[in-house]
Amino acid sequence: MVEKDDNVVFVGKKSIMGYVLAVVTQFNSGANSVIVKARGRVISKAVDVEEIVRNRFLPDVKLDNVALKTEELTSEDGSKSKVSAIEITLKR
Amino acid sequence: MVEKDDNVVFVGKKSIMGYVLAVVTQFNSGANSVIVKARGRVISKAVDVEEIVRNRFLPDVKLDNVALKTEELTSEDGSKSKVSAIEITLKR
Repeated sequence: MVEKDDNVVFVGKKSIMGYVLAVVTQFNSGANSVIVKARGRVISKAVDVEEIVRNRFLPDVKLDNVALKTEELTSEDGSKSKVSAIEITLKR
Repeated sequence: MVEKDDNVVFVGKKSIMGYVLAVVTQFNSGANSVIVKARGRVISKAVDVEEIVRNRFLPDVKLDNVALKTEELTSEDGSKSKVSAIEITLKR
């Protein structure tokens, strides 16, 4: 993947507002697009982040694309499991 | 909204496979499109449903659109709260 990592926000276990701040900061630093990524149960948190960024902080930012996919994870013991993932692309 | 309710699957607290079966049944009954809807934490379950339907059961079904939005809920005491929502449109 040729992708500038600084334009990607991975949503995980931290608070929603922490990720909102990360996205807003990237746009305010001049980014034209930011991709919000999440896997598994925190997919819903990624949607919260996107909605709060656009409705409360950056109304000029548009929802450019939403990709849904399945990723395969390999755990430490070598067993594999599948997990759903989302990639939300926001564009100014 | 002019929308045939029998082409909509609302994802809630039941098991993932129950919703997968509901979507597959609608397509097998002749539906050309099915919309998978979810609000709040079960948004990630809706993505699981979509991925399992397409990858395991109906590979000819395409992901047509993913809409993200915010809905306002009014609780019994009249207080309002906002919740993120997803609408995943699948097309044959």
